[in-house]
Amino acid sequence: MMNFYDVVVIGAGHAGCEAAMASARIGAKTLLITLNMDHIAQMSCNPAIGGIAKGQVVREIDAMGGAMGIVTDSASIQFRMLNRTKGPAVWSPRSQCDKVCYQRGMKLWLEQMPQVDVLQSEVTAFLMDNGKITGVTNQFGDEIHCAAAVVTTGTFLNGKLHYGLRNFPGGRAGDFPSNSLSAALGEQLKLRLGRLKTGTPARILAKTIDFSQMARQECDSAEERFSCWSAGHSPALPEAVRHDLPCYQVYSTDETAEIVRRNLQYSPMYQGVIKGIGTRYCPSFEDKVVRFPQHPRHLLFLEPEGAQTEEYYINGLSTSLPPEVQRQLIHSVPGMEHAVLSRYAYAIEYDFVFPDQLERTLRIKSCDNLFTAGQINGTSGYEEAAGQGLLAGLNAARIAQGKSPVELGRDSSYIGVMIDDLTTKDIIEPYRLFTSRAEYRLVLRQDNADLRLSEFAYETGLLPESKYREFCAYRSALTEVLELCRSRRHAGKSLLVHLKDLPDNTPLAEATVRLPFPAGLLPELNDDRQGRRIWRELQVEARYDGYLQREAAEISRLRKLETLQIPADFDYDRIKGLSNESRSKLLKVRPTTLAQAGRIDGVTPADIALLQVALSRKNREATEK
Amino acid sequence: MMNFYDVVVIGAGHAGCEAAMASARIGAKTLLITLNMDHIAQMSCNPAIGGIAKGQVVREIDAMGGAMGIVTDSASIQFRMLNRTKGPAVWSPRSQCDKVCYQRGMKLWLEQMPQVDVLQSEVTAFLMDNGKITGVTNQFGDEIHCAAAVVTTGTFLNGKLHYGLRNFPGGRAGDFPSNSLSAALGEQLKLRLGRLKTGTPARILAKTIDFSQMARQECDSAEERFSCWSAGHSPALPEAVRHDLPCYQVYSTDETAEIVRRNLQYSPMYQGVIKGIGTRYCPSFEDKVVRFPQHPRHLLFLEPEGAQTEEYYINGLSTSLPPEVQRQLIHSVPGMEHAVLSRYAYAIEYDFVFPDQLERTLRIKSCDNLFTAGQINGTSGYEEAAGQGLLAGLNAARIAQGKSPVELGRDSSYIGVMIDDLTTKDIIEPYRLFTSRAEYRLVLRQDNADLRLSEFAYETGLLPESKYREFCAYRSALTEVLELCRSRRHAGKSLLVHLKDLPDNTPLAEATVRLPFPAGLLPELNDDRQGRRIWRELQVEARYDGYLQREAAEISRLRKLETLQIPADFDYDRIKGLSNESRSKLLKVRPTTLAQAGRIDGVTPADIALLQVALSRKNREATEK
Repeated sequence: MMNFYDVVVIGAGHAGCEAAMASARIGAKTLLITLNMDHIAQMSCNPAIGGIAKGQVVREIDAMGGAMGIVTDSASIQFRMLNRTKGPAVWSPRSQCDKVCYQRGMKLWLEQMPQVDVLQSEVTAFLMDNGKITGVTNQFGDEIHCAAAVVTTGTFLNGKLHYGLRNFPGGRAGDFPSNSLSAALGEQLKLRLGRLKTGTPARILAKTIDFSQMARQECDSAEERFSCWSAGHSPALPEAVRHDLPCYQVYSTDETAEIVRRNLQYSPMYQGVIKGIGTRYCPSFEDKVVRFPQHPRHLLFLEPEGAQTEEYYINGLSTSLPPEVQRQLIHSVPGMEHAVLSRYAYAIEYDFVFPDQLERTLRIKSCDNLFTAGQINGTSGYEEAAGQGLLAGLNAARIAQGKSPVELGRDSSYIGVMIDDLTTKDIIEPYRLFTSRAEYRLVLRQDNADLRLSEFAYETGLLPESKYREFCAYRSALTEVLELCRSRRHAGKSLLVHLKDLPDNTPLAEATVRLPFPAGLLPELNDDRQGRRIWRELQVEARYDGYLQREAAEISRLRKLETLQIPADFDYDRIKGLSNESRSKLLKVRPTTLAQAGRIDGVTPADIALLQVALSRKNREATEK
Repeated sequence: MMNFYDVVVIGAGHAGCEAAMASARIGAKTLLITLNMDHIAQMSCNPAIGGIAKGQVVREIDAMGGAMGIVTDSASIQFRMLNRTKGPAVWSPRSQCDKVCYQRGMKLWLEQMPQVDVLQSEVTAFLMDNGKITGVTNQFGDEIHCAAAVVTTGTFLNGKLHYGLRNFPGGRAGDFPSNSLSAALGEQLKLRLGRLKTGTPARILAKTIDFSQMARQECDSAEERFSCWSAGHSPALPEAVRHDLPCYQVYSTDETAEIVRRNLQYSPMYQGVIKGIGTRYCPSFEDKVVRFPQHPRHLLFLEPEGAQTEEYYINGLSTSLPPEVQRQLIHSVPGMEHAVLSRYAYAIEYDFVFPDQLERTLRIKSCDNLFTAGQINGTSGYEEAAGQGLLAGLNAARIAQGKSPVELGRDSSYIGVMIDDLTTKDIIEPYRLFTSRAEYRLVLRQDNADLRLSEFAYETGLLPESKYREFCAYRSALTEVLELCRSRRHAGKSLLVHLKDLPDNTPLAEATVRLPFPAGLLPELNDDRQGRRIWRELQVEARYDGYLQREAAEISRLRKLETLQIPADFDYDRIKGLSNESRSKLLKVRPTTLAQAGRIDGVTPADIALLQVALSRKNREATEK
């Protein structure tokens, strides 16, 4: 028999890596099982981490001690802060990455991390006793025992790749699918599985592209990074040889759209061969042409797959049309007339677990020690996967340690927003984060993830003492400056109010000459990383002080509703006046708090009022007993 | 229809990469097709290039403009010259490599090389017309037309992986097998296919190894490299971050052997589950235990898989025993008591083409424009594969260009020795090169590969002008010095004869103080790369002058036999006196020269004499007509 592990993580993509690391960080002996050691943390689709709302998630993972931000910084070949011309609530960091560098970095870190073992094999079934997982088996017949498990299988469950009307089993181009595990989830665990679809564009070779016909997009800030931590906390990781590579923008043509229309009979999407549902927000190129016939052209980005490869990713040209049609599509774009394809675009269908079967801890409701994270839960995106992975790994380890699992609130993180959405709303297409999904966008900024989450991470053991000390030093410096700027007055107004008069995003280096009050009044700020971070927070606070306070009040009101727990066995049938629709949805989701109940589609404020009365009565009865 | 290619190369392992590059170098438009772009030039087994006889092959590839030596130099994490205490004929360079760095380097070079396209797909059949290849198709239905093709499928044809008594289809752990192509070779091309077997040991994680119980083996020469060329000729390749990593030596124990003996009932080899034949010279650990019961222990090497990974390769512990037994085996070795396995050892069975169906040009005898190279021809080893790949790629391109294919002689290269052996002798197990396979070991040295092959490479177009000029400069400098040392005399003997009195391998830096004649007599040699190379040649010539001259005479005698061509349709039945065995073997091999005929097992000197008479008569008749 193999050693016993506290936690077994199945799958080493973006969710699995964070899950294994989070589990190990809080002291659980962890085994990460992957189909292929060489594909750990593979970026199966676009060569970038971050972006709108996703960049916030990476900051949140980083603030909680996760790896994604740090590995991205090493592998970055171009950093950009998106939405910089808009308000700080929607600023979003994004890095193009060297894919191989990213993989190597994550793999190396896992290999070095105490408490983590890694094993290449395919998990084929669960060992179970009394409805709980006691371990897993693989194709070799290994029996690996554990106290809790996390499943992060991405697109691998019964994965099927579509190239035109031809399709092939696979977890990703070049990888075997996981068919036995899908059966195990359905048959052993009786989980309801659905079918989703996603896709990836073709890759083309640089020497066959005429970049002179495209707009060049440069790195916008060479010293910006994802991670808020100083370098000393993590191991030396593989470093991209260039951090300043450009991308290229180009538009598709009328001819491109015409080629799509001419070839829809070869589209597995439009011919009904693909049953899984794709994400509306990351449509295939044929979807764009069909759904937006009024748009004659669509923006494409050519993104390098790394600093030491000549393969380029054609962002915006995801398709499942046949290879020969793909070639025509690509050749109809200026600068790509002679492009040679190295990898064809394809769509992939895969099984997922309907996430209404999950608690907000990411635990399977019907199985006390099993967690799922990432695309298996119906999401799309590396960052969404990693965020879930971190929480699932943390909670699996907590279960193994005899603690109760924890949740992340909608008011503290995008990860919390996502998981609450997943477990509350009907997921009928791959779920992707947007800033618009968050009620408290001004609070959930990319620049304050540590202020929102690092205390929680420290309390749960995710954040080591060394990082926590660094965080506390920053937080107290910030608090002190902020307090001074609130209390110190000039010409009848606080410094904070004066700061509102500065032009947006004034750099700290220019601040002293532009301050609307004598420079000596401003608490001293060095033009270093910490000083610049504090300066940014000051500017945000100055500009959005009122809004922030209103959001804080709203959050506080909501927190009260979140404290109104609904017992897992609550009897909705006893509440008179609930509509049948509401009752059935409440029974399906089984919200854990009144606030969550209120977010279920179709559950009305009137229903919530009825529920609140019933809960208060129940609590009163419980107290009186 | 896709563009037409002069040459299509199927498979991008060590044979395929050199084949595609050689083809492109001589100007043929070349398509390299691989199952997975990310696995181009993957080192599926040990993390090293070179070694006894293999190191010579890498030098030969390098001398002919190939890539293996240059990529190895970038990826090297430890260089050693093996057999340094023995004669120069058997000195053999070897580099531990960073596997990912090696892959990335080869992939990048291919991507950048003009005339080479790369496509990820699986070739499933040949397009044929009149017994000739006109193209290939893949799983997507692409029809790719070509003038010649090279098949370099490694272990992928009907590949089956064995872990104990369980087995799985696969081309390598984590890769799909190529089943359709195997059928195509058998059914479309009517080739006789056989079944071979090879294997790879487990990988273990560094943090679980106690290296203090092992002997450390350091890099022996930090400035030595494989490539004889200066840096300017090749693109900037990914560079390993360390070039000086140690390996570790340790011995297996009585307990290790005992575990093998206790578990032979789970061995697919010993239970007859594996039908393919493995190589005697690279046996599995269970073979060593069973065949050498008198040896209580076996030497193992722990080799790092790269400079930025913690995975270690256990050289010497290849096995197909089940994972649980593997764990026991490894734990019985000092320092590995607690080793955690990240990848299990396995054996792989695969189809190969009996190489008596090949010309010495590596062309399939029955198909004028199809070539095979590497493990598909029954060899083992990255270097053997790469050497064949280079010749096959060159010849496929020559066919596409309307030229006749060329051969490499046994007297000019180990590659020639290997191919002559493959096409002449019965291959019943994977063929591996040894220095003992060469008749002219003193001539086929690792230090003179360019002197043997660069002229040929230049003539065939493999070597660009820039490299050829560099070679000529070196050759004339060497010739001049050598001539002077032969003609210049001191105390009645030539300098060359005097040099024999120097201790073996005296470095150039020490030469002046140790010379057995006044230093001024020695032609000036700078202590740079070229000077040191010339100095080494001088020492070899001094010590082995007589032997070298004898080998040269023997080579010259043999070359005469090689000039006696045997027509492809030669009628052996008409020769009276040939034994039936000889006749059937001659018919099977169909040697192209009398010299080759003489190397066929079972063909006697008397048979050769009969043949020589018949050939002379035939030639005379031809002349008289």
